[in-house]
Amino acid sequence: MPASPIRKLVPYAENAKKKGTKVYHLNIGQPDIKTPDTMMNAIKNFPYPIIEYTHSAGIESYRRKLVEYYHKYEIELDYTQIMITTGGSEAIEMVMMSCFNEGDEILVPEPFYANYNGFGVAAGVVIKTITADIKTGFALPPISEFEKMITKKTKGIMICNPNNPTGYLYSREEIEQLGALVKKHDLFFLVDEVYREFCYDGEKHFSAMRLEGVDANVIMLDSVSKRYSACGLRIGALITRNTQVLDTVLKFAQARLSPPTVGQVAGEAAIDTPDSYFEEVEAEYTKRRNLVVDKLNKIDGVFCPKPKGAFYCFASLPIDDADKFCQWLLEDFAHNGETVMLAPASGFYSTKGQGRNEVRIAYVLNTTDLKNAIDCLEKALQVYPGRTAKKNATALNNA
Amino acid sequence: MPASPIRKLVPYAENAKKKGTKVYHLNIGQPDIKTPDTMMNAIKNFPYPIIEYTHSAGIESYRRKLVEYYHKYEIELDYTQIMITTGGSEAIEMVMMSCFNEGDEILVPEPFYANYNGFGVAAGVVIKTITADIKTGFALPPISEFEKMITKKTKGIMICNPNNPTGYLYSREEIEQLGALVKKHDLFFLVDEVYREFCYDGEKHFSAMRLEGVDANVIMLDSVSKRYSACGLRIGALITRNTQVLDTVLKFAQARLSPPTVGQVAGEAAIDTPDSYFEEVEAEYTKRRNLVVDKLNKIDGVFCPKPKGAFYCFASLPIDDADKFCQWLLEDFAHNGETVMLAPASGFYSTKGQGRNEVRIAYVLNTTDLKNAIDCLEKALQVYPGRTAKKNATALNNA
Repeated sequence: MPASPIRKLVPYAENAKKKGTKVYHLNIGQPDIKTPDTMMNAIKNFPYPIIEYTHSAGIESYRRKLVEYYHKYEIELDYTQIMITTGGSEAIEMVMMSCFNEGDEILVPEPFYANYNGFGVAAGVVIKTITADIKTGFALPPISEFEKMITKKTKGIMICNPNNPTGYLYSREEIEQLGALVKKHDLFFLVDEVYREFCYDGEKHFSAMRLEGVDANVIMLDSVSKRYSACGLRIGALITRNTQVLDTVLKFAQARLSPPTVGQVAGEAAIDTPDSYFEEVEAEYTKRRNLVVDKLNKIDGVFCPKPKGAFYCFASLPIDDADKFCQWLLEDFAHNGETVMLAPASGFYSTKGQGRNEVRIAYVLNTTDLKNAIDCLEKALQVYPGRTAKKNATALNNA
Repeated sequence: MPASPIRKLVPYAENAKKKGTKVYHLNIGQPDIKTPDTMMNAIKNFPYPIIEYTHSAGIESYRRKLVEYYHKYEIELDYTQIMITTGGSEAIEMVMMSCFNEGDEILVPEPFYANYNGFGVAAGVVIKTITADIKTGFALPPISEFEKMITKKTKGIMICNPNNPTGYLYSREEIEQLGALVKKHDLFFLVDEVYREFCYDGEKHFSAMRLEGVDANVIMLDSVSKRYSACGLRIGALITRNTQVLDTVLKFAQARLSPPTVGQVAGEAAIDTPDSYFEEVEAEYTKRRNLVVDKLNKIDGVFCPKPKGAFYCFASLPIDDADKFCQWLLEDFAHNGETVMLAPASGFYSTKGQGRNEVRIAYVLNTTDLKNAIDCLEKALQVYPGRTAKKNATALNNA
């Protein structure tokens, strides 16, 4: 597995900090939102004297409680269709190992979450991409583009909804189109829905688990990481109505014995988190998104579609190469002793050269920091040697 | 991955319980010892408002604290040589993925921990076994037996010390012999030392990490699960002085983002567990082992070597087939409304037919329960239809 473009930047960020520069981290998906009290109190009141293994598929009472949680999203399940995993990461790993053979191909719209490829490589599965367009806000590419790519080796389609890294929220119609396609070609439909709670502007998330007639195809990957700002808990889930897949996944689950026990107890308690917690989080992220996207689009040469979900946006910048630019920001630039760390888009595309001038921005800081960070980015774009577009008069005057 | 012989028994155990039979579980490695207060208090006082990702290799302060812990066992390390994993299971999985290619072979003395094979299969690695003898208490087979098995495909040797499933504690001399062998043939030496604390009769554990001149070969797999009776915490470690291996393992670690955060905080605190905790545990297990092994050897036709480590013993029984016998115990037998669940040895051998009349017994219950359980086993052996050895007169009179 090659090192990702973000990880390559880490030493530069460390050096910048050593020189005394403040680095705004817009590069990672680690939110600054407080973990809810429901979860924290469950940890602080862990009720057992021994931290024992649980059932390899997870604690039954937690799985039953998750049935209630999903019911709120009109996803109707039996608890046996829910396997608790060690984070969403393990759900991805297990689905790759359980559903595919060496050389099988999965179609994924790009830009996409880079670790799909990491776990794919480990399982001998090939990720093939269909490029989504920044101009449409990274909407689903036409279904005909998917059909063109389907060969005998194609065994699955995978999406992240709402999307990491673009923030795009797939519509019910797009999910239904994909549902018809996986049914027609008998493919697995892997849906990573870990950002379900993060939808804005009154939009509603439509889960692929609600599609009819594709029970054998759809496999949902989920996690408590983003929902409850508990990335370090390492509790996720793999959910499907396909009993054959459940049986195979269980064997991998048994080999690693048990998901984390304390985390499962906390995950179960978190299902009673009051709606007010999520309303506050939604209001906060909406404010952040509006601030970041509005400020970005006011910068000369920058284009950033306004996403409806997750806590990322994707922007094209007036630059020659985002990898170089992101490194330059950390190595050679500072404005009032501050700089910004961004995620270059190259890590999210597998088509070579795609997204060369694009970056992902995670709006996971408070609005004051976000304002300073985008101001900093604006200044940087004015003086970056690899700038491609002409600066406008205002920008030059401010430089 | 095939279902293990123990897992196949689970439905029979559930049925027995439904019929009202009390089942003594001597089949699993889940100890009944209390998790130490150091660890429990760290969980109850988790100090952060957000459960964040940690570094993929683990929290630095925890890794540094582990250096102190290993120093007590004369294992001298730098913290960068310690990668925190999600349980010992993930350490096994990562070493299989990182150090070996499809078709590579690892030599393991059998009986062996069945999940080595599970993770081996998943990584395309072949486990080849050399049979240890119950008559020697499962001592290391002669080194010449290992040498005979080494081919171009052989890339590693793996042991568990103290051993699961046999309880055998390898001597310093045996470890040194293996050290010389891996050096001679340039093999990886994988040592699973999760039972390090469980040594009896004043015996001391000798870690393969103390061998000289094999820094590039030795990879230690560790876990807090048994040490602190915290199997559900899912915190382990992969430790080596081979920087190339560390670099590759880090890539797999980065793909799954982070080991559990709460568990790491608890693991760090547990290093300050007072010696008195381990002294009590050792005294308790010594008492249990003596009780179980002495009682077993008094049963006509039973042979059970007295192990020096872990909390398992391995016995040969006067029976035709341990798989059948263990199922029969749950399905067709009860004494005073009680029966016993044992682990048939077939799951610990890869040589077909080996250990057909052997079982693993985990002495993880209190002495009263253990006494009742072994009494129950004695009665069962008197009436089991597939008994092979003649019963002696006393046994017949008691039946």
